[in-house]
Amino acid sequence: MKQDLDRLMQERGIDALTVTGTPKASRDLYYLTGPVHVTGCRVVKKRGEEPILIVGSMERDEAAKTGLLIRTSDEFDVRKITKETKDPLEASVKVVLRIFEVLGVSGTVAFYGTGDIAYSHAMLDALSEEGKIEVRVEAYDSIFSEARMTKSNEEIERMAAVNQKAQEVIGAVRDFLASCSDEGGKIVDVDGREVTIGRVKEIISSETRARGMLMEEEVIFAQGRDSAVPHSRGDNSATLVPGKTIVFDYCPQEEGGGYFADISRTWCLKFVPDAVQEIYDQVLEIQLRMLDSLKLGEPCSTYDRLTNEYFDSRGHPTPAKGTGKTEGYVHGLGHGLGLNIHERPRVSMMSKTEEKLSPGHVFTIEPGLYYPDREIGVRIEDDIAVREDGTIVNLTKFAKELLVPLK
Amino acid sequence: MKQDLDRLMQERGIDALTVTGTPKASRDLYYLTGPVHVTGCRVVKKRGEEPILIVGSMERDEAAKTGLLIRTSDEFDVRKITKETKDPLEASVKVVLRIFEVLGVSGTVAFYGTGDIAYSHAMLDALSEEGKIEVRVEAYDSIFSEARMTKSNEEIERMAAVNQKAQEVIGAVRDFLASCSDEGGKIVDVDGREVTIGRVKEIISSETRARGMLMEEEVIFAQGRDSAVPHSRGDNSATLVPGKTIVFDYCPQEEGGGYFADISRTWCLKFVPDAVQEIYDQVLEIQLRMLDSLKLGEPCSTYDRLTNEYFDSRGHPTPAKGTGKTEGYVHGLGHGLGLNIHERPRVSMMSKTEEKLSPGHVFTIEPGLYYPDREIGVRIEDDIAVREDGTIVNLTKFAKELLVPLK
Repeated sequence: MKQDLDRLMQERGIDALTVTGTPKASRDLYYLTGPVHVTGCRVVKKRGEEPILIVGSMERDEAAKTGLLIRTSDEFDVRKITKETKDPLEASVKVVLRIFEVLGVSGTVAFYGTGDIAYSHAMLDALSEEGKIEVRVEAYDSIFSEARMTKSNEEIERMAAVNQKAQEVIGAVRDFLASCSDEGGKIVDVDGREVTIGRVKEIISSETRARGMLMEEEVIFAQGRDSAVPHSRGDNSATLVPGKTIVFDYCPQEEGGGYFADISRTWCLKFVPDAVQEIYDQVLEIQLRMLDSLKLGEPCSTYDRLTNEYFDSRGHPTPAKGTGKTEGYVHGLGHGLGLNIHERPRVSMMSKTEEKLSPGHVFTIEPGLYYPDREIGVRIEDDIAVREDGTIVNLTKFAKELLVPLK
Repeated sequence: MKQDLDRLMQERGIDALTVTGTPKASRDLYYLTGPVHVTGCRVVKKRGEEPILIVGSMERDEAAKTGLLIRTSDEFDVRKITKETKDPLEASVKVVLRIFEVLGVSGTVAFYGTGDIAYSHAMLDALSEEGKIEVRVEAYDSIFSEARMTKSNEEIERMAAVNQKAQEVIGAVRDFLASCSDEGGKIVDVDGREVTIGRVKEIISSETRARGMLMEEEVIFAQGRDSAVPHSRGDNSATLVPGKTIVFDYCPQEEGGGYFADISRTWCLKFVPDAVQEIYDQVLEIQLRMLDSLKLGEPCSTYDRLTNEYFDSRGHPTPAKGTGKTEGYVHGLGHGLGLNIHERPRVSMMSKTEEKLSPGHVFTIEPGLYYPDREIGVRIEDDIAVREDGTIVNLTKFAKELLVPLK
């Protein structure tokens, strides 16, 4: 949780930290600022003190909405330094050092954020060489990834709310499909128009906006062979047909670029071929079994191991065997969810760290099976939250019914 | 232009380059791939050879739509390496070196892209220490910024098209406002509902989508004091009132995250106070004068210098005098425009480099004056393109009329 940052800084010997970029792109920045419309900014936080948000003076009003302490770049002579210093890199170093001087930052300073990798690399090297501060970078498992992994009940409430709205959208799409009918192998709407995937995506998009959410990641609504390529978004020009698997994987985000939901359902319109039903039943069985067996203190990777074993026992290629590449079970069981669609805890056997299921964790459970040549893809995905008191809640109640009957 | 990349690599002694991130966030990546929906990818290009796009196998179908040569991470044993190597950073280094080995990349390799600055920094350091290749970073004025600064006629056509659509949206908003009326100092629509800025932004947003554009940057529609803080987005809950300056600054983007337009107009509803008219006339005068005087071969910064001189002669604080911080003329005259809202050429006195106006340049000309205490803000912004034959075209024809009469 956010209040863990000071303790983590202490444990890792970090005297101050700075995060740069935009809150939209750098989720660590958003974690500190919340939603704010600025073209770029810097947060500086000394251990044990409140974060300070530095913006250009043109953006001071927007910045003030965050409720953080605000300083503008004018206060650090940014223009003067930029004007006087020919080399832009040298100017950047001077600006950073001036900011640190004015704010009384010294010792070991950790740098976070997203940005141009070449520029940042050169800047951090140059800053390090100056020797005025100790430059620290946390290449992975940063204090932010650690703090953000544990959500407060308040964060979980926000995630539950976006999840609820996401399910409403999925329901609206299912209702639309159920209102269609089959005319000689083609799915048509009540007006007799053929339904394309592009049309369905427009519905998803407008239902998303109508609920004040963003669709940062383009939705997956993929049919037949496409449904069997997990990250295929689906072919907008393709028309829907009966009896093919449709994978609908949907990650809307809170307005202002906040928390995500991430839900998948698999549907067949009008009828379900036996081969599809068999695969679907296996995916559903292991998903329900995993959901039932979630237990505090258990390493998260356990569940992916069990899923690999289950699919292997049913004769499917799996990543654990090294065989699940494009057929069978081809990904991990799930992933942490929050301000990023993928964050900690890791719910995969590929996990490097033994993250044990703990209060504050929010993550997906999404087994799937994929057979591109047979044009079958199945994935079922719910979002799970562990509240501060240790209660494990499935945020996603939406029905897991493969068949969508037509009118 | 894109075909300059090989020459620039040659001139700078770069044997190969690699760009990482997402095409949405890393515009250099988009420059090579065009629109593509992948969660992350890497492009590798050896000098004189076609770029190769590397994606996870789950995203191979989406990647194939780019028309580039595609390789999947399976071909480089990414999973195996990741599984066998405990330290994630070491694993990343091994993966990169394996990719280079398989693709025959050696010598000096330049790294581009956007991403986590801490991770990238540590990775590039570790890769450098391995000593297998020479790591090059271009901190600024990279070969991409150089190539992208010169647009082909085809790129200019795309930018003209998005500019045209943007002007249609501005026209639709103006038409809506002109259909409103003043009821006792409040602006109401034809149904008698008070018009808020939030409502206007919804119209902008839906008109943008209706034309297949994105609104990545939240639009500025700011009134009164807010209009005088250049990057204030405007207060959504505020109701429109007659006689206040409204700055409408709008940057829609091509579908799929491509090229931008960037247009500003300033309006007053129903009537124009004399003090506002006086300031508006000065901004318009210098804008028209600068547009008329654009000449190939002239340093782009000249126009900003002339604008500073003009505003100074009219008694306004200016950046050139060091006085234009929050009042008067407080920014540069313009900026290059393309896959980023701000890119080269630099059209500002703060410019470090003497960029001379050349074929392929696309940039904004946007003088403005700002007086927060007097609640007056004025900015007028057009987008200019220089075609390959040297013809200078103003892409933005939308009328510059301050007054929007009401019904």
